Amino acid sequence: MPAQPGELGLLRRIRERAKDFGGARLRLGIGDDCALLKPRSGEELAVTTDLSIEGRHFRLDWHPPESIGHRALARGLSDLAAMGARPVAIFLSLGLPRELTVPASRGRSAMSRPWIDRFLDGFLALAEAFKTPLAGGDLAESPLAVADIVLIGAVARGRALLRSGARPGDLLYVTGSLGGAAAGLARLASLARDASRPAAPSGPPGSLRIPEELGQILAPHLYPRPRIAPGLRLAGGGLATAAMDLSDGLSTDLAHLCDESGVAAEVDAAALPVHAGATLEQALHGGEDYELLFTAAPTVRIPRSFAGAPLTQVGRIVRPRKSRPRVALITAESKAALEPRGWEHFA
Amino acid sequence: MPAQPGELGLLRRIRERAKDFGGARLRLGIGDDCALLKPRSGEELAVTTDLSIEGRHFRLDWHPPESIGHRALARGLSDLAAMGARPVAIFLSLGLPRELTVPASRGRSAMSRPWIDRFLDGFLALAEAFKTPLAGGDLAESPLAVADIVLIGAVARGRALLRSGARPGDLLYVTGSLGGAAAGLARLASLARDASRPAAPSGPPGSLRIPEELGQILAPHLYPRPRIAPGLRLAGGGLATAAMDLSDGLSTDLAHLCDESGVAAEVDAAALPVHAGATLEQALHGGEDYELLFTAAPTVRIPRSFAGAPLTQVGRIVRPRKSRPRVALITAESKAALEPRGWEHFA
Repeated sequence: MPAQPGELGLLRRIRERAKDFGGARLRLGIGDDCALLKPRSGEELAVTTDLSIEGRHFRLDWHPPESIGHRALARGLSDLAAMGARPVAIFLSLGLPRELTVPASRGRSAMSRPWIDRFLDGFLALAEAFKTPLAGGDLAESPLAVADIVLIGAVARGRALLRSGARPGDLLYVTGSLGGAAAGLARLASLARDASRPAAPSGPPGSLRIPEELGQILAPHLYPRPRIAPGLRLAGGGLATAAMDLSDGLSTDLAHLCDESGVAAEVDAAALPVHAGATLEQALHGGEDYELLFTAAPTVRIPRSFAGAPLTQVGRIVRPRKSRPRVALITAESKAALEPRGWEHFA
Repeated sequence: MPAQPGELGLLRRIRERAKDFGGARLRLGIGDDCALLKPRSGEELAVTTDLSIEGRHFRLDWHPPESIGHRALARGLSDLAAMGARPVAIFLSLGLPRELTVPASRGRSAMSRPWIDRFLDGFLALAEAFKTPLAGGDLAESPLAVADIVLIGAVARGRALLRSGARPGDLLYVTGSLGGAAAGLARLASLARDASRPAAPSGPPGSLRIPEELGQILAPHLYPRPRIAPGLRLAGGGLATAAMDLSDGLSTDLAHLCDESGVAAEVDAAALPVHAGATLEQALHGGEDYELLFTAAPTVRIPRSFAGAPLTQVGRIVRPRKSRPRVALITAESKAALEPRGWEHFA
């Protein structure tokens, strides 16, 4: 990996690697003032941005660079999935400390590949899995590592899944299982605590050794899979009345869906598909599972799974009343308000 | 300004303020997983992202918050101008230290408006000037202030101005004048040096008092005007063979244009429209002027100004030869290589 120094060298390397992905709707990619997209007639474009910041969304010492690249992109893809959109183009604005752009020395004379190359490995592998080209972005030197992802997707006109369409009587569903990402993060944190010595509480970037046998437990946190295919099925079939992705935690995200739809909701604790190894608390408030939360009319038949994702009915939408919490959690013993306790910045 | 705390309160305030701007092509704005755009048939969409980072692109102690918001957005608008695109939608990913989101105490008991509100003043005033809605984005707590701007514009199919279309024999033009931003930045830096005392080398955010009489000198740096209207004229009239915006400095940007077009260029030093108060060096390498650099066939009549922007012929495109620099500067005394000495990250 002949790491040509400077912004131009970096740009050239990224452009080379981005070339591998074609995209019918992308007329002009990296290299000009803007990229050019050619939407098909009858299509709307869905646009989302997701900011990932060192120390907030990832830790350089804990997270493998490949995971940081993967997770940054997964957040944006998941927003497209939640709208039922097909990914069309990716933009990446990357601010990095200089040392992450050059080979790092690893003891003796061995030099490892630059951090950014491994970040791109994870980023571009996920982009390739969804056949979506990296079409542009920006690059800057920064004391702190930051990555802003822009995703553009296409959806047939009027077919996009919104947060605002849920109606009283609708049933509430989730894809996959919940709490796996939070459980994985807790395991990663304990691994990091065990590995740290008092003299060096946080190691250099990507230094935490992750034992192979932990791969499966950490995967929901390190390498979440956005639910693009289920989202396309929901939108294409006109099955869902509302949808969003579970990024901040069910308790917080469901409250947003209720606010946007002007409804209330009830969640059945016993019905929740809690991820193996996760707790009910992690399933309710954990966040970053990137599963889809959606509502459908009770007359619509929702299969037990589609496009590889299990589907589980976890509750229902009800009329909002002053005497009733916005979101209630129903257990064998009680029915109580489920307060939003997921992720909130500046809280 | 009742500053509701937390991410949700902030989002609500931004959403309220963003509501004032309509956009025919924007079907769904802030509040869902994605925004939805409805392009018109026969249109292509131009997309650009621009990252602004504290300490790199702006200084919290030097720059008024309104200027930081204005400049962040101006960078993206200028990229659209360079493609000849009409702005359609803006996305803003903002990472901020918590103290910039709450009112700051200013001596005694007087409380000033939160930094973010003044940032939005500058940002939204420029958005309004170009009737472009803020359609979405992301918000995160961050130890460092970062703003990534995404601009989406519309341009008639096949009409976009590219960097790659310049041909030997074409004439080289710029809009407006050059070096004004660099001269303004130098003046701002000397003002900051004069204001600082040894005990407090950098003041709190937005603390540098800028005397009113300096407004005009600093304006090209603090409040640059993107050349949207001239860009639209160039693209609409099919006048230019290539175009880009001058963000990194003429010497660096012209080298990019030559690379993308596979040509060389000659610049006439005497013809350069050097901004009043700026030096030739600042005009050649200064950057951040956000003027347009474009080429046109010699047979095309380019007026002395259009859409409010003076137009000046500053050189010509020539065939690339091994014996010839990619970009040459011609003065009364000599013809010598003009090396790229504008801004480059990781340099």
